[in-house]
Amino acid sequence: MVPDAPLHHHEQLQREVEELCSTARQCYARGWVPATSGNFSLRSGNRVFITASGLDKGKLRPEDLLEIDLDGEVIGGQGRPSAETALHLVIYRERVSAGAILHVHSVWNTLLSGKFEGDGFVALRGYELLKGLSDVATHEHEERVPIIANTQEYAPLAANLKNVLQQNADAHGVLLSRHGLYTWGEWVAGARRHLEALEFLFEVEGRRVFGGF
Amino acid sequence: MVPDAPLHHHEQLQREVEELCSTARQCYARGWVPATSGNFSLRSGNRVFITASGLDKGKLRPEDLLEIDLDGEVIGGQGRPSAETALHLVIYRERVSAGAILHVHSVWNTLLSGKFEGDGFVALRGYELLKGLSDVATHEHEERVPIIANTQEYAPLAANLKNVLQQNADAHGVLLSRHGLYTWGEWVAGARRHLEALEFLFEVEGRRVFGGF
Amino acid sequence: MVPDAPLHHHEQLQREVEELCSTARQCYARGWVPATSGNFSLRSGNRVFITASGLDKGKLRPEDLLEIDLDGEVIGGQGRPSAETALHLVIYRERVSAGAILHVHSVWNTLLSGKFEGDGFVALRGYELLKGLSDVATHEHEERVPIIANTQEYAPLAANLKNVLQQNADAHGVLLSRHGLYTWGEWVAGARRHLEALEFLFEVEGRRVFGGF
Amino acid sequence: MVPDAPLHHHEQLQREVEELCSTARQCYARGWVPATSGNFSLRSGNRVFITASGLDKGKLRPEDLLEIDLDGEVIGGQGRPSAETALHLVIYRERVSAGAILHVHSVWNTLLSGKFEGDGFVALRGYELLKGLSDVATHEHEERVPIIANTQEYAPLAANLKNVLQQNADAHGVLLSRHGLYTWGEWVAGARRHLEALEFLFEVEGRRVFGGF
Repeated sequence: MVPDAPLHHHEQLQREVEELCSTARQCYARGWVPATSGNFSLRSGNRVFITASGLDKGKLRPEDLLEIDLDGEVIGGQGRPSAETALHLVIYRERVSAGAILHVHSVWNTLLSGKFEGDGFVALRGYELLKGLSDVATHEHEERVPIIANTQEYAPLAANLKNVLQQNADAHGVLLSRHGLYTWGEWVAGARRHLEALEFLFEVEGRRVFGGF
Repeated sequence: MVPDAPLHHHEQLQREVEELCSTARQCYARGWVPATSGNFSLRSGNRVFITASGLDKGKLRPEDLLEIDLDGEVIGGQGRPSAETALHLVIYRERVSAGAILHVHSVWNTLLSGKFEGDGFVALRGYELLKGLSDVATHEHEERVPIIANTQEYAPLAANLKNVLQQNADAHGVLLSRHGLYTWGEWVAGARRHLEALEFLFEVEGRRVFGGF
Repeated sequence: MVPDAPLHHHEQLQREVEELCSTARQCYARGWVPATSGNFSLRSGNRVFITASGLDKGKLRPEDLLEIDLDGEVIGGQGRPSAETALHLVIYRERVSAGAILHVHSVWNTLLSGKFEGDGFVALRGYELLKGLSDVATHEHEERVPIIANTQEYAPLAANLKNVLQQNADAHGVLLSRHGLYTWGEWVAGARRHLEALEFLFEVEGRRVFGGF
Repeated sequence: MVPDAPLHHHEQLQREVEELCSTARQCYARGWVPATSGNFSLRSGNRVFITASGLDKGKLRPEDLLEIDLDGEVIGGQGRPSAETALHLVIYRERVSAGAILHVHSVWNTLLSGKFEGDGFVALRGYELLKGLSDVATHEHEERVPIIANTQEYAPLAANLKNVLQQNADAHGVLLSRHGLYTWGEWVAGARRHLEALEFLFEVEGRRVFGGF
């Protein structure tokens, strides 16, 4: 078992699973996981519960989650893991205190990740909402959200993600270019707080850049 | 009966009808079928169930569907078929595996179809969400969504649509200029996946073109 | 009694009142009547049921409507009529088949009415959604929505509205500059269809003009 | 006790607390308090009920409110006061008839407060929706919403806010740059009316400035 990973009592785990599913349904309602896109997971000790491939996230229920180990072997549940499961596992290994990961495709994260791919990151600074990110205490903080080139070859993508996580120890999320955002937290609620803060800031920054403010 | 068309058991058909109606109500809530616009259908063997003309899609119920044959003759249900029924029938003939068709009017499909009418298509490429379209396995795919000039003369429009479908065998949808999108799938869920993917990409592409990203 | 005015049976009237209230609540949910703005009415013979001044439209119930006559005298209900009641009465007199009037303040109708006030109208043409307006059978129709200068002096405003309605016999709605839209229909459902069509077209046209499409 | 402060009967107070919580949940649904941001309070005599730090406003319940006195001492409830409690108390002292305060972070108030920080205010004029603000009787009114520089040092920020409130006796709200809006009213409903009017006008003005209307 990886050090520091959360290990839940049975009822805690059930609550977290419910919270993950309601977060997924809410993301669908906001248009952040259209067309069965996106994936969501939580970790408890050396087990990971993750959305199976191809599900409509607007209807996600606890029985739609696969149970896997940290090597990606399926222990329980129905359906097959999506290719992006490998990326969740990289994050759980590199961010050992992470207990939940959310991956969404929003209009604004798609636009900004495409626009700033050449820079390698989206820079967010000067906004009070940065304090929605763990351990950020001031709007003067500059959050650099790394951008990785998109590819359908998941082995090099996983290696690239591992590298980016190691080189950006303070990052709260990672963008895949014209693809989407990965963010995480110790609990589902913390991961959702990061998601809401980053997506809000992407929209603000997108409109600012876009409208010449 | 056209080869390959889905033929449902009674309970499957009921579920598909319910799914079609809930998809229509959801489209209304998103602002994609304002002012009783849009129409929705599913096919089971040689029968088609389709929304009658002039209904408020926010309240669509199974009893609001007309049952017609593949020549457009009404077999059951109340109300009269809309003029666009002919376009649904063209699609069912040209896309023999299609089991459902969704036609919506969104702000972004109206804007993009008007802007790119002269090109004859909207090109979408480089986006991960393209993988929401059946048989598309990479963001490197270029999806060209054909655009047909709008007209109120439905006979030439149907002929034009037939022609466009034959010349664009891989297309997942067709736009009518400043009018709306037609998309389809083997099941209602698949058609909705195509709809969500295309509308997401229209918004992203619309904002990109529009803001000079 | 004005000729042609709808006269409802008791149950029809109850249904229309319920429909008017649910339409108002829906407009609130869409952000079209913020801050207790907007007003809504229906007519049955020589009686008008209209929202009292200052109500939160997100919670509108049948008992929140005032009953007045065509001279604006209060016959029943609680609260006081808003100043804009006079404008509803002008419309009922000039559009004798109107059975319902909706008045909303949306972001896009505010922007477009301000931008085109100098022209005296917003022109909408080439859009399929124009067919959401009664007696419009083609997207080639040009709808000119007249724009009246805003003022807090309701007597000259009512006179101006009367004049504009007489000079634009085919108009389906009237804008007050940087203020909002008035639209109507024979029934609440028809007025709502006009509202949805016009607001959709205002957003499309606003984004088109604004983004240089 | 400060003169003029509202003092509620027990049932009135319960209703106001419920109304404050439902307003907070509604603000969350609109995207105005993402990532546990924002705070909400009401005053009854010399007591203030205010959201504790770090709560998800989408789930706010009466038991999530702290009861404090006008010096910020906690009298009841669970959790700790947020740093912004001091700003609420400044407003209650300077606006003695205020019975409720709402503080939200919206995309448009973040953009406008950043853009116009150098001017010291956002000017809103010519819009009918200005009449959603108490004692504003005409669209010809110019509302200047003061903008204060953002800082994490709350003592000087509170002093600055006090100063701005004294110098802008007619203001219905105050912006913190790239942070958010504070607005208030005699009752929760009045504060919400101000919030809806100001946020609507921020969006209109933001799109106008941004799009060159």
